[in-house]
Amino acid sequence: MTQRIAVLAGDGIGKEVMPEGLRALEAAARRFGLDLAFEAFDFASCDYYLEHGRMLPDDWHPTLAAFDALYYGAIGWPDKVPDHVSLWGSLLRFRREFDQYVNLRPCRLLPGIESPLAGRAPGDIDFYVVRENTEGEYSSVGGTMFEGTEREVVIQETVMTRTGVDRVLKYAFDLAQSRPRKKLTSATKSNGIAITMPWWDTRVAAMGERYPEVEVDRFHIDILAAHFVLHPDWFDVVVASNLFGDILSDLGPACTGTIGVAPSANINPEGRFPSLFEPVHGSAPDIAGRGIANPIGQIWSGAMMLEHLGHPAAGAAILAAIEAVLAEGDAGVLTPDLKGRGTTEALGRAIAERIASQT
Amino acid sequence: MTQRIAVLAGDGIGKEVMPEGLRALEAAARRFGLDLAFEAFDFASCDYYLEHGRMLPDDWHPTLAAFDALYYGAIGWPDKVPDHVSLWGSLLRFRREFDQYVNLRPCRLLPGIESPLAGRAPGDIDFYVVRENTEGEYSSVGGTMFEGTEREVVIQETVMTRTGVDRVLKYAFDLAQSRPRKKLTSATKSNGIAITMPWWDTRVAAMGERYPEVEVDRFHIDILAAHFVLHPDWFDVVVASNLFGDILSDLGPACTGTIGVAPSANINPEGRFPSLFEPVHGSAPDIAGRGIANPIGQIWSGAMMLEHLGHPAAGAAILAAIEAVLAEGDAGVLTPDLKGRGTTEALGRAIAERIASQT
Ligand SMILES: CC(C)[C@H](C(=O)O)[C@@H](O)C(=O)O
Ligand SMILES: CC(C)[C@H](C(=O)O)[C@@H](O)C(=O)O
Repeated sequence: MTQRIAVLAGDGIGKEVMPEGLRALEAAARRFGLDLAFEAFDFASCDYYLEHGRMLPDDWHPTLAAFDALYYGAIGWPDKVPDHVSLWGSLLRFRREFDQYVNLRPCRLLPGIESPLAGRAPGDIDFYVVRENTEGEYSSVGGTMFEGTEREVVIQETVMTRTGVDRVLKYAFDLAQSRPRKKLTSATKSNGIAITMPWWDTRVAAMGERYPEVEVDRFHIDILAAHFVLHPDWFDVVVASNLFGDILSDLGPACTGTIGVAPSANINPEGRFPSLFEPVHGSAPDIAGRGIANPIGQIWSGAMMLEHLGHPAAGAAILAAIEAVLAEGDAGVLTPDLKGRGTTEALGRAIAERIASQT
Repeated sequence: MTQRIAVLAGDGIGKEVMPEGLRALEAAARRFGLDLAFEAFDFASCDYYLEHGRMLPDDWHPTLAAFDALYYGAIGWPDKVPDHVSLWGSLLRFRREFDQYVNLRPCRLLPGIESPLAGRAPGDIDFYVVRENTEGEYSSVGGTMFEGTEREVVIQETVMTRTGVDRVLKYAFDLAQSRPRKKLTSATKSNGIAITMPWWDTRVAAMGERYPEVEVDRFHIDILAAHFVLHPDWFDVVVASNLFGDILSDLGPACTGTIGVAPSANINPEGRFPSLFEPVHGSAPDIAGRGIANPIGQIWSGAMMLEHLGHPAAGAAILAAIEAVLAEGDAGVLTPDLKGRGTTEALGRAIAERIASQT
């Protein structure tokens, strides 16, 4: 049965890393006999906005809902379109309107990548951030009073729901339960954020009662960020609100060397809508167009997509190929962020070849 | 003229590091002929709460307002009093009701302290976080609807005012202007937090026009946290909202090795109310009572207090003594977090002696 994948390259380096993501997926499909059909769209990009005055066409929802998964590059080009316009008009709509309420982001130190943390080796850092992905601090509710005057007051509401919080907690506890260490860390800030966060803590405690085998701890986000640097080995599954998860899932990958390799999955666990797979990095206007962007985040996101689509062996083969190429450390192949002098394409080709030739 | 300092040790290790802070201040006062008078209070602690049912006595405001500065230890003991009760009843009231709208936190890699970041040496990391300290995400406005039911919705408002934001930006720009690099970095999240943060960006841009010599850049908080780990040398003055500043000012010190040494100043720049000086670390119930807490954060906060009170040479002498003792690296004196086996008191005494004997 054909699985249909919508391809949205987006902006900037999204357009450069996407071909390498597809190359890896095609190599894996050939090797594992998967029947994948890709269809590319130019919307959800700033260029589309400049031409059409909006980020998405009217029929985007039914169009994309018909796919089995969405494979996304990167979005945003602040010199063309303000970030809050481009993001709220695309990625953040996908997450919300396709109810992709789990943002799953592995943080793993890979072989051949130098961690900025002293003395850390592959195996020392290996955890997941589970981020709530539809509500919380990312709200557009609020406004400005006395605008443009000295009395100006700007208000923005954080909105959390029991439905929204409990379901992502459940996902995180299930994930912790399935892992050898069975440990869950909750990111809070109940000492400063006085209404939502103490309530978040009570929801974590309530859910924890249903998982007696899972060891639960919690840290305020400030000291938790510090512990990511000082003790990344403490963590197994970290569950966090939308904003805290956003911060931790850039910080975690930074501790593993480069956010250029970090993948993410925006998941609708019930499968009512397609899930979306994208690298953690952004569109990087500063290096776009030079062919030097690291494609591994995009490729690894593809591996997560195959796993989600029911092909764990194919996903694992992509990740193994990434690890093998990194471990080899050929400076002619690795991109500059990995201290090599290779191009996006050279690194992508090396990984695709490795996928094809693995036995 | 006598300068009066209110001493509030607070909870946990606050009670252990405070005597060492005072020892250093007294040594500096003797050497520089300062006339300092200390008065200790037992309120603003969880024990006081257990006895009196509140964190502060009725007359706390006039009582403390009569002092030239407040010297604070650490607060919170979640097993006795929930954090949001103890903090909102003390420290957060001081900051707000004494209008200490600047929270100034140096991040500096000191000699003899091993950074968790590979290959970083003293001099490589040396910047300030300027945190808005009275409004923003730390609000108690909001509430719960459909409480205790499946429909439960919890709302918390972030409130920013032009007055509140502009004045802390001005402080940060003035600080950047006064430093050799003249560089200011703004922490934002205008791509996700759609109302307050785009507005924050416009206020930064407006203030920047008044400081043509200051180079301004801005990063979203997620990638900024990553850059703290990957490129701590990029930063000079980082200005941030209350929550973002909270996170960055634990993360920055973590990158310099231990948050046990990090100091902070809660400043009312106009001097209408006393400013408050406290270590960044908390009350650390896990190690309290063992006499092994690192007193340097408390002592360095005292140095910031002396500078604020108009005694920069005395403040510098304390910092120089800290650096000298750290550089010496006597494991019998350094506390366990610094990989030594010394006690809080041993390290405090070593620093005080150094202050007295410097020439
Ligand atoms: C204890 C807590 C409320 C406080 C804060 O978040 O401001 C602390 O983390 C700090 O940074 O001073
Ligand atoms: C681009 C931005 C809106 C987005 C977010 O904050 O969610 C990104 O940082 C991410 O983590 O996917």
